[in-house]
Amino acid sequence: MKSYVVGLDIGGTKIAAGLVDLHGSLAVRMEVPTQQEKGFDHSFGRMIRLVESLLAHPSLKQASLIGMGACAPGPLDPEKGILFNPPNLSGWQNVPIRAKLQTQYGLPVHVDNDANAAGLAEALWGAAAGHAHVFYTTVSTGIGTGIVLNRKILHGKNGIAGEGGHVTINFGDTSYRCNCGNVGCIEAYASGTHAARRALEKLKGLPSLPPQLLEVTGGNWEDLTMKHLAQAARQGDSFSRSVIEETGTYLGIWLGGIVSLLDPDIIVIGGGLAEIGEPLFQAIRKEIPKRTINPFARETPVVKAAFEKDVGILGAAALVLSLPGRSRRLRA
Amino acid sequence: MKSYVVGLDIGGTKIAAGLVDLHGSLAVRMEVPTQQEKGFDHSFGRMIRLVESLLAHPSLKQASLIGMGACAPGPLDPEKGILFNPPNLSGWQNVPIRAKLQTQYGLPVHVDNDANAAGLAEALWGAAAGHAHVFYTTVSTGIGTGIVLNRKILHGKNGIAGEGGHVTINFGDTSYRCNCGNVGCIEAYASGTHAARRALEKLKGLPSLPPQLLEVTGGNWEDLTMKHLAQAARQGDSFSRSVIEETGTYLGIWLGGIVSLLDPDIIVIGGGLAEIGEPLFQAIRKEIPKRTINPFARETPVVKAAFEKDVGILGAAALVLSLPGRSRRLRA
Repeated sequence: MKSYVVGLDIGGTKIAAGLVDLHGSLAVRMEVPTQQEKGFDHSFGRMIRLVESLLAHPSLKQASLIGMGACAPGPLDPEKGILFNPPNLSGWQNVPIRAKLQTQYGLPVHVDNDANAAGLAEALWGAAAGHAHVFYTTVSTGIGTGIVLNRKILHGKNGIAGEGGHVTINFGDTSYRCNCGNVGCIEAYASGTHAARRALEKLKGLPSLPPQLLEVTGGNWEDLTMKHLAQAARQGDSFSRSVIEETGTYLGIWLGGIVSLLDPDIIVIGGGLAEIGEPLFQAIRKEIPKRTINPFARETPVVKAAFEKDVGILGAAALVLSLPGRSRRLRA
Repeated sequence: MKSYVVGLDIGGTKIAAGLVDLHGSLAVRMEVPTQQEKGFDHSFGRMIRLVESLLAHPSLKQASLIGMGACAPGPLDPEKGILFNPPNLSGWQNVPIRAKLQTQYGLPVHVDNDANAAGLAEALWGAAAGHAHVFYTTVSTGIGTGIVLNRKILHGKNGIAGEGGHVTINFGDTSYRCNCGNVGCIEAYASGTHAARRALEKLKGLPSLPPQLLEVTGGNWEDLTMKHLAQAARQGDSFSRSVIEETGTYLGIWLGGIVSLLDPDIIVIGGGLAEIGEPLFQAIRKEIPKRTINPFARETPVVKAAFEKDVGILGAAALVLSLPGRSRRLRA
């Protein structure tokens, strides 16, 4: 009999759910808008109805359901399965989501943050399949990380491990404050938001605007994103290409430190910026060996994530299938 | 019957060896000068004679010997037990120390670098005993790190994990190059060598020399070390105190990033600079929460290592007693 896991990806804009088999194939997928502006009870109710639609799906008639996983933006407590106060899910304060779902469906439920879950999906079934020590990062509006060791997420003392976007790489630069309040975090250099900010600042200093970038943005400079820069770079714009390369250099400085510290088997990069592809990855791979003492750094693969928009569902499902025995503290 | 392990600490100046019991007590201790200037065969021979003296010790008459551990300055391959080319052990190139000792004595032998071994000793028996996720750092001439998860050293792909002294914390400052060739590494800010360098530079700008510092150094400024600064600070010198606090701030910036990334149960600091004690530790503890997104960072203990000069012997012995099943890659 076929076995499935429910993967539930709770986001600020939409809630997506799917049936995932034990090999990481997504068999059924559904989603609804979160409508968080209508309050917690409303969006939680939408989520429950979504899960119930999924559980009524004909695929489950001849199959067994072995568990449920949910991922959400952090911070959260993965051990207790409680969301604290996700900035992008207003109203979802201190929600004991694990207990609620477990009671409702009588299934084992695991909860983790987006980046950890995505890293686990990549480690089990994606770009890092077969590797024991995986460093995953998602680079989009912000920068999240997930460390997966021997098919288990490294959670640390409070379940907060993996917030590597807030590692300081340049404490001396106090010109921009990261969303976390600190200065010099990698997120303040290389997230999509901050890379686009840098591009805008540089544009102001140019004698004339790059025509390819003008075309792809239609002159709406306030809405400039890395997608525009990637598109203009593909059309030959050297300015856009230089912003992409600079962003890759920053990521390489940071990842060089990670390689010194953790010597991972593989580095997997997902999120919106990974879609830029080789121009970004080449700059990253070039910089890492300059910024690490690890003599084998050139041989550490730095690859694009295998999963894109469904990584949340797959990651949530992977939580159920990760090896048992999460690391805990030895004493209270 | 009592059981012992041999711990062998191979250093550039001396080779120390001891019998360590299963609770981390050092029963017998011996050492010889390395005399590396006389070549590898000479110093290796001294090491073997040292081990043989230890094995002939009366304590072993009524006891069993269950293994041997050796630590040395990296880089080395802990899995194969080969020293590559330790900068402080000239002539010891590509020495298969594990195989040599195993053949000679017919005992299981484990080999690792100094900082990893020291971190393991602290995790098993020292300041971090009972904690599952331990971040250890030794701050002296250089900065080494060791990550111990569930009583096992995190080695990574090539066995080089834990070189956290070469994490970039300030890439924009190109005024000093770290020994590794990079700029902006934490080692280039907070190692004993670099902290003393900063003190000397600041002294040049002072209208008059701090009398306490003049007294403890005897005016030999070229030989200024953090020991002098610690002594002068204890005598009330505010200049020395400020250098110590600045060094603690740099370490806190770096450790804040580590807390974001790894969320360790405890941070243990050893090496010469830890001897400065509270003035340094207070500055570190004050800075960490400013430099991490982890909301629990204030509760993460930052403590002085329990072991001082014998940490190498204890760490080497601990290698034998760490849990079996070192992490390996899942595929070749």
